[in-house]
Amino acid sequence: MKKLKRSGRLVDMTYFLLQHPHELISLTHFSERYQSAKSSISEDLAIIKEIFESEGMGALLTIPGASGGVKFIPTMDEEEAKRLIANLCEKLAVPERILPGGYLYMMDLLGNPRFIQEVGRLFAAVLAGKGINAVVTVATKGIPLAYAVGQYLDVPVSIVRRDLRVTEGSTVSINYVSGSSKRIQTMTLARRSLEIGSRVFIVDDFMKAGGTIRGMMDLLEEFQADVAGIGVLVESRGSEERLVEDYLSLTRISEVNVKEKSIHVEPGNVLEKLRSLKR
Amino acid sequence: MKKLKRSGRLVDMTYFLLQHPHELISLTHFSERYQSAKSSISEDLAIIKEIFESEGMGALLTIPGASGGVKFIPTMDEEEAKRLIANLCEKLAVPERILPGGYLYMMDLLGNPRFIQEVGRLFAAVLAGKGINAVVTVATKGIPLAYAVGQYLDVPVSIVRRDLRVTEGSTVSINYVSGSSKRIQTMTLARRSLEIGSRVFIVDDFMKAGGTIRGMMDLLEEFQADVAGIGVLVESRGSEERLVEDYLSLTRISEVNVKEKSIHVEPGNVLEKLRSLKR
Repeated sequence: MKKLKRSGRLVDMTYFLLQHPHELISLTHFSERYQSAKSSISEDLAIIKEIFESEGMGALLTIPGASGGVKFIPTMDEEEAKRLIANLCEKLAVPERILPGGYLYMMDLLGNPRFIQEVGRLFAAVLAGKGINAVVTVATKGIPLAYAVGQYLDVPVSIVRRDLRVTEGSTVSINYVSGSSKRIQTMTLARRSLEIGSRVFIVDDFMKAGGTIRGMMDLLEEFQADVAGIGVLVESRGSEERLVEDYLSLTRISEVNVKEKSIHVEPGNVLEKLRSLKR
Repeated sequence: MKKLKRSGRLVDMTYFLLQHPHELISLTHFSERYQSAKSSISEDLAIIKEIFESEGMGALLTIPGASGGVKFIPTMDEEEAKRLIANLCEKLAVPERILPGGYLYMMDLLGNPRFIQEVGRLFAAVLAGKGINAVVTVATKGIPLAYAVGQYLDVPVSIVRRDLRVTEGSTVSINYVSGSSKRIQTMTLARRSLEIGSRVFIVDDFMKAGGTIRGMMDLLEEFQADVAGIGVLVESRGSEERLVEDYLSLTRISEVNVKEKSIHVEPGNVLEKLRSLKR
């Protein structure tokens, strides 16, 4: 790369840091890339740090010493998180969403990559310090959320399936009872797709009683995984017994009235968790 | 936002542009955001444009006039695309990937969000001028690729399913013949999940004869969609009749020898397509 002035370096470094979240980048990397002194690079990073932190994009950690460097930790400030959740609540409350049986159509939201990215960034912000090294979800609708979180945390994604595929190699399966339908179902995870002893974040689009997530937790025990967090886009609070206790939710649906065509949605608990991080 | 100096503006604008690909952003937006004159903003954008274009991150289009502004088009330069594909070829050729029946395990690659993002950026680079307004894939393994492309093109994603779910609302289904197994299967797309008359990019992880993609094309006809492109991560060239003619592939597997535990992989045609864009 040709020698760059500060203005050019700032653009290039911003791009590079955004593409490499949670990765330790040595000052040498940048000083060689731009043929600039480390002191200039440090000044550049101070400018980037100030903007990233004042605008709530993320934190820039500086690790001193020979093996040190800089690490970009994506975050989301409270105001932005509030706007994201308020927007989601508003969109979820649209009565046209109601399907026969009181189910809700959500693919308009789940099919929007930019929205999914923002949700991923919010979860990653709450999870930043938890040492998570894998994200697990269940096919199909949780997949985009899992990749968005995995991308911002820079960790791999494993997909639990309800069917069996020849392209998975050897698998581990368990039976579980779906909380709402009470039916016995099977879920499967490819043995190779998750390292033994991983620290896992489980994510899904929707949780009612929590049977599916409970099933994933049981399946993950077979991988000696440590479930360090659970997150859902929408939780539905019904009268049924909860099978999962501690989780993050962006929104909470307390009532779907099919007859009156109304949906009651409120913010979930993720904002409180985000707030408590700062204390 | 408080008034920023050029250095701060460059960091913030780079971040903002990367988060808003393919979106027309007025100069007024930036000049109000930073309380700076439009002439200063134009100078900032010229600096960003130079770096983005010289480093192969993307193009920055300036649209003049009152309703004009600036648009960031993510791209990938040939060198970076070559490295990505060479790396993928190397990883695909590892014999441990071979499963009984000659299938290949690929979840280690497909489960890596950063790799998936890069593939999405490469497809988006080739597709930038094609007016695509939706990405369609089939559950399960194509989903992360579809979101990565959708994100870089700033268009929604629709997921075709092989099962039926109550949360989809009214759906359109077709039967299709899987090219390799010759079995008749069903695929389904929620009516609400794709606008009639969309210009679609179809993406999947793997294509052998092309039966599944052919099925998607037939299903998309029911939505009066115009298939403006097809892309796969891996194509497998066997002796079977091809059901799909024109497509982009990152890699091509010409032989899997189960007995000798060898896989022959070569680059697909996407590099040629990327090159031909520049002429």
